[in-house]
Amino acid sequence: MAGWARAVRGLLLDVSGVLYDSGADGGVPIAGSAEAVRRWTSRGKLATQQTWRISVPGLMIVQLGSDSRAKWSWIKASGLKLRLCTNETQATRENFVRKLQGMGFDVSVSEVTAPAPAACHILKERGLRPHLLVHDDLVPEFAEIDKTNPNCVVLGDAAENFTYANLNEAFRVLIGMEKPVLISLGRGRYYKETDGLKLDVGAYMKALEYACDVQAEVVGKPSKRFFESALAEMGVPAEQAIMIGDDIVNDVGGAQQCGMRALQVRTGKYRPSDENHPDVKPDAYVNNLAEAVDIILQQM
Amino acid sequence: MAGWARAVRGLLLDVSGVLYDSGADGGVPIAGSAEAVRRWTSRGKLATQQTWRISVPGLMIVQLGSDSRAKWSWIKASGLKLRLCTNETQATRENFVRKLQGMGFDVSVSEVTAPAPAACHILKERGLRPHLLVHDDLVPEFAEIDKTNPNCVVLGDAAENFTYANLNEAFRVLIGMEKPVLISLGRGRYYKETDGLKLDVGAYMKALEYACDVQAEVVGKPSKRFFESALAEMGVPAEQAIMIGDDIVNDVGGAQQCGMRALQVRTGKYRPSDENHPDVKPDAYVNNLAEAVDIILQQM
Repeated sequence: MAGWARAVRGLLLDVSGVLYDSGADGGVPIAGSAEAVRRWTSRGKLATQQTWRISVPGLMIVQLGSDSRAKWSWIKASGLKLRLCTNETQATRENFVRKLQGMGFDVSVSEVTAPAPAACHILKERGLRPHLLVHDDLVPEFAEIDKTNPNCVVLGDAAENFTYANLNEAFRVLIGMEKPVLISLGRGRYYKETDGLKLDVGAYMKALEYACDVQAEVVGKPSKRFFESALAEMGVPAEQAIMIGDDIVNDVGGAQQCGMRALQVRTGKYRPSDENHPDVKPDAYVNNLAEAVDIILQQM
Repeated sequence: MAGWARAVRGLLLDVSGVLYDSGADGGVPIAGSAEAVRRWTSRGKLATQQTWRISVPGLMIVQLGSDSRAKWSWIKASGLKLRLCTNETQATRENFVRKLQGMGFDVSVSEVTAPAPAACHILKERGLRPHLLVHDDLVPEFAEIDKTNPNCVVLGDAAENFTYANLNEAFRVLIGMEKPVLISLGRGRYYKETDGLKLDVGAYMKALEYACDVQAEVVGKPSKRFFESALAEMGVPAEQAIMIGDDIVNDVGGAQQCGMRALQVRTGKYRPSDENHPDVKPDAYVNNLAEAVDIILQQM
């Protein structure tokens, strides 16, 4: 049995390409993923109940056997944890989760780590007033942020808003600053929608970086700070967490750099050539999320 | 008097930002530039006449004095040469020259080195069939090129054609190839139009390069091959040519890498911060083309 699956207490899941394939029609769930999430979550609830049954000091060590320390720490924190760790910037978390629930996924807003709220935190922290080049449906996430007289540009996956005029406007805001500040919500190259591959925010980030001779600050995967937030919100240390994603660089490489194990699924934008990536090697490949969860649960 | 201005026999001129400022309204000439081109051209004609007057071997050395060899070589080639060395890809050469003539510039189609014809040469040479992402007005330059079943993408300054849909389409053509071939007509970061700065083709080139993990082949400045074509078409060796442009990297840096001297004008997209460029240092700064031509002609 696979060694990578041992002592996992927290799952970080990429969403698009792992839970569902996105698309103009709202997208379609990937077969088996909703059941896999449910299996994981219900095993977590079971573990929580076990915590109460065995929480009499002294008895425990006898009951838990040779691997007792790891199992105790696992049970102590009220069971298994799940976190959606997404670079999704085409919707607010509320609408995003509502869509997933509509597809049968048992997830809640409190389980989502996404770039826009993380960016808002940074904007407030540094007194930055953004010019937004983002998807219309993401704008409400920035409702409480002062956007007058911008002193930075925040770039998300703006999709149809990536017009020539809008990109020029963001460029002019940046080039007019003494020290341009460009905050990019992720740096993905492309993603898969139901009607084919689409350019992601990273491509437009590179365009503006080049035009303005500036390096963007990436909020979202693969930023270390972003993964660390997700781990902290989940309350699981890196060595007990596993990231599952379809993006070899942003999901797998990013998570590994934070000390997590990471799997690449063969769904979403996965391409066979990913398996020869020069820099990043996942701890394992799995055909899909369902297979990953099966293997991990069998190890427990 | 400036040493850089000595023994110049061929002028390579960038066009946008040196002869005129482009814009949706067709653009406006830069003060003094049309007269400067005329002064240079008429001095060239004068030199041609002198060739006949003094072409009696033996007399010459006495007449030409101490700097005779350089002057003889200068006169021998029928006077001074002019070449428009442009990355313009928003119009065919014919329409481009017609516009310049309409602004009072004494130039002809045969004096233009531009990326689209150079790209057509490469496409034919290598049997490449392009998917074009270019300005509508440039398409006629590719009239004789087979564009069925594309096996490369040719990217120009497509301006309003840089829609989200068009960029996605070019991306999909590239990502579908085993070895993506991206040919970019220039790699400029931005240029100045009458209503402000605009993103140039280089920004979109970077977006596609990043998305497809490919390096574009640049046809146009600052490619060495492109400058060498311009010199060959002008019939002047690099050491007797001088490039005058407003782009510190693509005009000045590119020309210097070919062994030419190069000036940056303080017109067009010139910005004071260019004078602190970490890698490129022009042979001189001039306020505008008129000043450059004055100084060069005074050296003769």
